[in-house]
Amino acid sequence: MIIDCHGHFTTAPASLRAWRERQLAAANDPANAPRKTDLAISDDEIREAIEKGQLKLQKERGTDLTVFSPIAGQMAHHLGNERTSMAWAEVCNDLIHRVCGLFPANFAAVCQLPQSPGAPPASCVAELRRCVEELGFVGCNLNPDPSGGYWKDPPLTDRWWYPLYEELVRLDVPAMVHVSSSCNPCFHGTGAHYINGDTTAFMQFLTSDLFKDFPTLRFVIPHGGGAVPYHWGRYRGLALDMKRPPLEILLNNVFFDTCVYHHPGVDLLTRVVPVDNVLFASEMIGAVRGRDPRTGHYFDDTKRYVDACGHLSEEDRRKIFESNVRRVYPRLDARLKKRGN
Amino acid sequence: MIIDCHGHFTTAPASLRAWRERQLAAANDPANAPRKTDLAISDDEIREAIEKGQLKLQKERGTDLTVFSPIAGQMAHHLGNERTSMAWAEVCNDLIHRVCGLFPANFAAVCQLPQSPGAPPASCVAELRRCVEELGFVGCNLNPDPSGGYWKDPPLTDRWWYPLYEELVRLDVPAMVHVSSSCNPCFHGTGAHYINGDTTAFMQFLTSDLFKDFPTLRFVIPHGGGAVPYHWGRYRGLALDMKRPPLEILLNNVFFDTCVYHHPGVDLLTRVVPVDNVLFASEMIGAVRGRDPRTGHYFDDTKRYVDACGHLSEEDRRKIFESNVRRVYPRLDARLKKRGN
Repeated sequence: MIIDCHGHFTTAPASLRAWRERQLAAANDPANAPRKTDLAISDDEIREAIEKGQLKLQKERGTDLTVFSPIAGQMAHHLGNERTSMAWAEVCNDLIHRVCGLFPANFAAVCQLPQSPGAPPASCVAELRRCVEELGFVGCNLNPDPSGGYWKDPPLTDRWWYPLYEELVRLDVPAMVHVSSSCNPCFHGTGAHYINGDTTAFMQFLTSDLFKDFPTLRFVIPHGGGAVPYHWGRYRGLALDMKRPPLEILLNNVFFDTCVYHHPGVDLLTRVVPVDNVLFASEMIGAVRGRDPRTGHYFDDTKRYVDACGHLSEEDRRKIFESNVRRVYPRLDARLKKRGN
Repeated sequence: MIIDCHGHFTTAPASLRAWRERQLAAANDPANAPRKTDLAISDDEIREAIEKGQLKLQKERGTDLTVFSPIAGQMAHHLGNERTSMAWAEVCNDLIHRVCGLFPANFAAVCQLPQSPGAPPASCVAELRRCVEELGFVGCNLNPDPSGGYWKDPPLTDRWWYPLYEELVRLDVPAMVHVSSSCNPCFHGTGAHYINGDTTAFMQFLTSDLFKDFPTLRFVIPHGGGAVPYHWGRYRGLALDMKRPPLEILLNNVFFDTCVYHHPGVDLLTRVVPVDNVLFASEMIGAVRGRDPRTGHYFDDTKRYVDACGHLSEEDRRKIFESNVRRVYPRLDARLKKRGN
């Protein structure tokens, strides 16, 4: 089967965003904040959003299951406060839970965390636990910059984050390192902040002993690892210059997805990064929605690029399309096995 | 001939850094600040630093001339204030001028600008003019984030920068977009901040009409363009989604260097970016100083990677190694012609 490890519910009904706007407008006026139950989205609305969107594209492209999470750009942890982030995460995660309940063969849930700038990551533990243990989620998205482009919180390797990592390890779920929208006018969201976030996180990992403290903690770096595979020689050389372990050691804990929207990029990724560390993903329907006028195909139809990598064996492709994802997301693997997959 | 368009005087005598430390210690005590003339570096010291460093490697690697500027990481515009940045730029630029005077066949000078967080770029015009018109410099380095990793100044496409661009256009010199060191603990300098700066600048250009206002303004984005060529499909798709002109239009004004420290990266760069927009560079002696234990060659010996790109014709290589640089740096071209090159 073909598992896409990176999709967001970008086609969610407009009433979700309207609820968020009402919530933010009342951020400092809790008495007038919308309640979770004020969000009225019917099953039919969800079905329509999914069937005309992600499910349609799954069928067209020949993929089977998407690891699915709330809209990354709308996490916007920099807006509101700790309390609004908490309620917003619950609302978004509950909606993802409903999607996966309606289409259990096609989607597996990953949660948004109730992060907030300056708030200790420990406060995300309860929502993570609820999603994984009560709702059956298989991972989470972790924002390395809750300030939305000003990078004011400590690096991911700081002990500040350890209480959250302890829970990730206990639950045996990975985190995808994924920034949200940028409120810094220097950074375009999907064109700069997303990619910079990926590159930044990798370099934080490279310069620290985080994985000595958490040998089983796993991070997926999306968008093909930002700039990292393109500059693989730079990172190998920096690690050597700094007397850090070789990058291969880091690859026990760090994985890259294939959200790189042209064949030469995916070709480089799969040549440079060991194939065991590459997880298939498209982020459809996401950052780039159009078709390439030169080919007529969607830019984010990344399966085509993987298929076109002549240097990959069938076994390599099986790893990228399925078994690596199942290894990194063991709770997904367990569920698939239960269903006979 | 082979021109390396990106080198810094990283082997400068230690007394330069000592002067800077004294200057910063007295940043708020101008009466006790060191004078420019307090920096005593002899011609012999410069000769030794260059002959044992960059000149030796030029000879070993078979390159002829390096476009040479002050140490990027030590520009540190976020330290001190406008006044210290001004004196520091003058000191560093005068030293580069001496290098190029001692080795005129091997180095051409590019200047550091006296930027300072929050200070209008217009205040850099006088030093740029002095360097170009009085000292014969052929370009400048422009820091897109004088705050050193907090990105507090306006994007490069803001009118804030226009007075500087007017002077760049008048002088007909390009700017290399080059951040300095990072004081943000989230960003490793050469491993994250440098690469993020490149990616960020490209996306700023993509989303603006800057080059309608300055049709002849030219920027070189170093480090192989950050993440951009690896994500070329993403940028093509984003431009289409946003109804921006195709990337090719941007390429009238934006160029990439070859500071990518492994062959697969340079291979991708030269396949994806039109060959007219790729400028040879190594940044030696710079971010990565060691040899690859797998090959025995220096990671930053980028000429090897260009040489190994079988898809490039001899004419393509001549463009990358020489004629593109001469086109983007017309003052260098004029000087070379005068010398019969």
